[in-house]
Amino acid sequence: MRNFMDADFLLSTETAKTLFHKYAENCPIIDYHNHLNPKEIFERRRYDNLAQVWLEADHYKWRAMRVCGIAEHYITGPASDCEKFTLFATIMPRLIGTPVYHWAHLELQRYFGIYEPLNKDTCNAIWEKTSAMLQGEGFDAVSLLAKANVKILCTTDDPADDLQWHLKLKEDKEIPFRTLPSFRPDRFLHIDQVAWKTALEQLGARYGTITDWESLKAALVKSLDFFAAAGCKVTDHGFLRFRYANGDPDHVMAKALEGLPLTEEEIAVYQGALLRFLGAEYEKRGLTMQLHLGPIRNNSPKLMKAFGADAGGDSVGASTDAFLLSAFLGDLEAADALPKTILYNLNPVDSTMLSTMAVNFAADGAKVQYGAAWWLLDHIRGISEQIDQLMETGLLSGSVGMLTDSRSFTSFARHEYFRRILCEKLGNLVESGQYPWDEETLGALVTDICYRNADAYFGFRI
Amino acid sequence: MRNFMDADFLLSTETAKTLFHKYAENCPIIDYHNHLNPKEIFERRRYDNLAQVWLEADHYKWRAMRVCGIAEHYITGPASDCEKFTLFATIMPRLIGTPVYHWAHLELQRYFGIYEPLNKDTCNAIWEKTSAMLQGEGFDAVSLLAKANVKILCTTDDPADDLQWHLKLKEDKEIPFRTLPSFRPDRFLHIDQVAWKTALEQLGARYGTITDWESLKAALVKSLDFFAAAGCKVTDHGFLRFRYANGDPDHVMAKALEGLPLTEEEIAVYQGALLRFLGAEYEKRGLTMQLHLGPIRNNSPKLMKAFGADAGGDSVGASTDAFLLSAFLGDLEAADALPKTILYNLNPVDSTMLSTMAVNFAADGAKVQYGAAWWLLDHIRGISEQIDQLMETGLLSGSVGMLTDSRSFTSFARHEYFRRILCEKLGNLVESGQYPWDEETLGALVTDICYRNADAYFGFRI
Amino acid sequence: MRNFMDADFLLSTETAKTLFHKYAENCPIIDYHNHLNPKEIFERRRYDNLAQVWLEADHYKWRAMRVCGIAEHYITGPASDCEKFTLFATIMPRLIGTPVYHWAHLELQRYFGIYEPLNKDTCNAIWEKTSAMLQGEGFDAVSLLAKANVKILCTTDDPADDLQWHLKLKEDKEIPFRTLPSFRPDRFLHIDQVAWKTALEQLGARYGTITDWESLKAALVKSLDFFAAAGCKVTDHGFLRFRYANGDPDHVMAKALEGLPLTEEEIAVYQGALLRFLGAEYEKRGLTMQLHLGPIRNNSPKLMKAFGADAGGDSVGASTDAFLLSAFLGDLEAADALPKTILYNLNPVDSTMLSTMAVNFAADGAKVQYGAAWWLLDHIRGISEQIDQLMETGLLSGSVGMLTDSRSFTSFARHEYFRRILCEKLGNLVESGQYPWDEETLGALVTDICYRNADAYFGFRI
Repeated sequence: MRNFMDADFLLSTETAKTLFHKYAENCPIIDYHNHLNPKEIFERRRYDNLAQVWLEADHYKWRAMRVCGIAEHYITGPASDCEKFTLFATIMPRLIGTPVYHWAHLELQRYFGIYEPLNKDTCNAIWEKTSAMLQGEGFDAVSLLAKANVKILCTTDDPADDLQWHLKLKEDKEIPFRTLPSFRPDRFLHIDQVAWKTALEQLGARYGTITDWESLKAALVKSLDFFAAAGCKVTDHGFLRFRYANGDPDHVMAKALEGLPLTEEEIAVYQGALLRFLGAEYEKRGLTMQLHLGPIRNNSPKLMKAFGADAGGDSVGASTDAFLLSAFLGDLEAADALPKTILYNLNPVDSTMLSTMAVNFAADGAKVQYGAAWWLLDHIRGISEQIDQLMETGLLSGSVGMLTDSRSFTSFARHEYFRRILCEKLGNLVESGQYPWDEETLGALVTDICYRNADAYFGFRI
Repeated sequence: MRNFMDADFLLSTETAKTLFHKYAENCPIIDYHNHLNPKEIFERRRYDNLAQVWLEADHYKWRAMRVCGIAEHYITGPASDCEKFTLFATIMPRLIGTPVYHWAHLELQRYFGIYEPLNKDTCNAIWEKTSAMLQGEGFDAVSLLAKANVKILCTTDDPADDLQWHLKLKEDKEIPFRTLPSFRPDRFLHIDQVAWKTALEQLGARYGTITDWESLKAALVKSLDFFAAAGCKVTDHGFLRFRYANGDPDHVMAKALEGLPLTEEEIAVYQGALLRFLGAEYEKRGLTMQLHLGPIRNNSPKLMKAFGADAGGDSVGASTDAFLLSAFLGDLEAADALPKTILYNLNPVDSTMLSTMAVNFAADGAKVQYGAAWWLLDHIRGISEQIDQLMETGLLSGSVGMLTDSRSFTSFARHEYFRRILCEKLGNLVESGQYPWDEETLGALVTDICYRNADAYFGFRI
Repeated sequence: MRNFMDADFLLSTETAKTLFHKYAENCPIIDYHNHLNPKEIFERRRYDNLAQVWLEADHYKWRAMRVCGIAEHYITGPASDCEKFTLFATIMPRLIGTPVYHWAHLELQRYFGIYEPLNKDTCNAIWEKTSAMLQGEGFDAVSLLAKANVKILCTTDDPADDLQWHLKLKEDKEIPFRTLPSFRPDRFLHIDQVAWKTALEQLGARYGTITDWESLKAALVKSLDFFAAAGCKVTDHGFLRFRYANGDPDHVMAKALEGLPLTEEEIAVYQGALLRFLGAEYEKRGLTMQLHLGPIRNNSPKLMKAFGADAGGDSVGASTDAFLLSAFLGDLEAADALPKTILYNLNPVDSTMLSTMAVNFAADGAKVQYGAAWWLLDHIRGISEQIDQLMETGLLSGSVGMLTDSRSFTSFARHEYFRRILCEKLGNLVESGQYPWDEETLGALVTDICYRNADAYFGFRI
């Protein structure tokens, strides 16, 4: 029996251990997609206790608590931090096999030097110890990120954002990593949602009133230039259903601005035109286009009513239409306007389709990547599946690797989780005679995937 | 090399062996979904031989025989029991890797004490031995179930059923387990099928003539009350395609009663209204709503013509629309009418979607479960997949565990099969350092999943 | 640590090693589906170097090179053979985990006796050695196939083909294997593609002018008879989307011949009628119908423009509609016209659906098979998945086994790859106590799957 989550956690062979400890463990982190709040970084946000760190905004943990039958009062409700933490600690043993279980213990180990399992018996001592540590030196937001060896952070930002915190962060010379904005025009894509009109008004207020397709494009270009000047390298787009069609977007916008209902086809025409336009603009600026495909959001009316979006009522939705996605990428490629692109799926049924789709568009350089295991797939099997897909139908050695996609300042242990799984898989290939033991090649491959590929692909130059 | 299917079958680590033998093996069985005939239980049905036990109604074995090229004469046809059994035994070695192979040998071991492999060389001796045993004491239906340590059986019953055998069983004080009816209104849901009108007539004859939506609801409520009084805790619903829409069901019923063809949309309106109505009625009574999603039935016209339904011509169909399922569960939740619900998929592509969907609706307690590996997924990899899904995206420790879904009185070895796989997986987590070795916690978790969670969830109080 | 790709590659247990070396390794090869050029066989095509063997037509390797960032000039462009080979060798270490990596090394071992890894350090020596060998004796197309122990080759041929090379091959008494044509009427099925009219003209020129549905059927029957006389045992059909409907195909053909656009429904009517007609004709002649379901082709406009089809811009597309496929097979069965049929999926999401669908139609003998892991699924996990599906929901022991689907004369190492994975899986069943160690039964099972089942199923009688 192996020790509980020791230094060789998830590493079962000597090759895996060598690759991880010698090549992966100490690599810097390029976290090219997350939801951190730049204000909290700039202000060196501090925490009183682990409940604030873990339970303030983490819908993974909220879901775990709810499904264990804990009342909302103790999850997102008015219960005290200590009560919330105690209940979370109490259910920990029941979270056997979940990524939350592993993440929480990795975070206790790496940030607090705590190696015992969290449960009802240990929670008081752990509460005391972590509370004391959090209130001391080295536990503000910047220190937590620095401790994790973060070099690049790409947050998620609306095109109408003034990026004030990013601009301040750029001037802050004491921070040992760069925090860069990412351009996420979701509100502008989803013409069928109520937020669309507000988005247009907000963008218009900054970049010139938007009354039609031309003025929308003009404002988005100004915003993109502003983002690029602020260091933006990455963009992002989320789709419940990926729609795509050709047609006249101006006509659709006119209808939407008048408040008339749109058909599915009209939405697809508008989204198709906007995606083609944005894709080409990204390509001109060397930006990467991320597509996040397939969630289903706000399923629970009770949570939506009580809390609003991002309450933990989101999950895995529909599969993505390969023909539409191919048409979109193909239209961009045919127009010499295909940007670097990363495809992410939330429904595992799309894994092989997306991994093989990415390789179709390598005629002009390896621009399209199949992205890391996303959100509800970010667990051992999901990470393993993405690595397998890349090996079988893509190119593992060219992968830009892992990201956190997180709102949490301690979630960077997820990079370690990924790196362990990666090294274990490579170790198994070597140990089983499927690949020669060539430490130099394998070590380089590991560091490439851990951060060097991402550095080159996005153009960070850390 | 391990011994063939010995006491540690499927258990490769000491932790797994401890968990299984100490905590799982002797747990009672709560079989909350099966297709046993209550009449056969009450009458203590007996069998002359293993062909009657195994080959009379088991479409798994029929499919296996057919695909081995055996003529229908020796499967569902007029050949003698001994001929059928001999041919089945002869093909056994060819069924390598199938669940049927493991189930059959587990049943030989547990019910008959036979530990050698079944094949053409051993079949005569096994036929003789089992025939003799079956004709002796302890092999009637009740004894077989008692031997398996069954405490609760939930059969599958039509709302128009008079439940006469369940009522008799309730009075039979010599039976060491409870046999409860389950409410399965499939004939009433599938308004596009010929059985719908007959179902209305039969229900109407018992509970008042059904001429429209109101009278349908009134009759179903009376039936539900009758079922609940008879001990019903569980309901069940099968869908080839899950349809759901809002609208006026009365109008659709009127068309259907006139014999007019219905559109897809009209069927969805009717089914949606009926499901919402029934769901709320279940919730009022504390009943659990099972949804079985995604088979495709009666594919073979030859089998359908020769034999009728349930001949073994059924298989895996389409995936389920996440948006429709979410809308249904959300509408119930919004109306404070969401009952306990279990979601089962036959197409493995729906696993992650359903497992994550279940957790969305825990705002008001952990009501929705992702159900056990169903039917054609009821094999080592399928069971393993369900357990993995629960660990990764649901809550394994809260699972209500296994059921047989079977027509066979000896199929309860499937609970043992599940328990072995469960203990093996938990053992692997511990042995690989992913979870601490804490026997008390792990032992409790195992017994919870084996039967205590089910007992509490359904409210059996065994 | 095991040796790199030694004699026991992929075999981890003694049982697996025994089964492979004693029963699988030396079995003849029946390659019942490939894209070899019969002219090159008849003419004993020779190669100057490994670049010609490997890089002339292999879109797997092209994709690998492109995704590594190699310019098209060195892939399908005018660069020299030596430059192309050198670049391919240089990227080999980056192809860790890909089937291309394993295939290439198996081919180096089996055809050239080279056991070291191919990379930038070894490529010159390997280039020299293989070039010398290729220019010597025993490396023409026939010798390469004979060395692999090939007994049957089924190529892929258009109904309008004159089969001149097959007819010559039939007369060539020095070739130690049979090369048989396969009937692939794809151009005739895809009435919505431009090649359809040309196909009709070409077929009409050989078998009587085609002006309508009746004359199309008449010409196809003549072609089928010609193919059957030439030794054809297998037919093949590829579908991006499997469509199926009932209706009047003559009307649809008339529209298409006039150049009018067709609706989806009309295409489905035509394809449905043609498939039913052809299926019945196959059944009359004892031919096997292969259905290849779910690719998406020519995704890259750049590759399509520069190179045309089959450039490596193809990948995994949509899933297949179970209801339509069931309706098609059911209609044939109901008309006593269901031929032997093999179902292949490119999207892994269809695996369980197809594997279970096949078994539905065994009422009249085990006619329908779930086919080997196809194309982008032809890797360790994909092959393993197909074997698992057959064990869990089909019949592994009845499987017709592996095929290359290849354009390459050295790709027959893929049979060895499959056989190793098969023996490893069977070995694991035995070693873990899931199946008794019975060498005779297991050995027979292995050789059945390696070639004897295929020989019997297709009726080759090698």
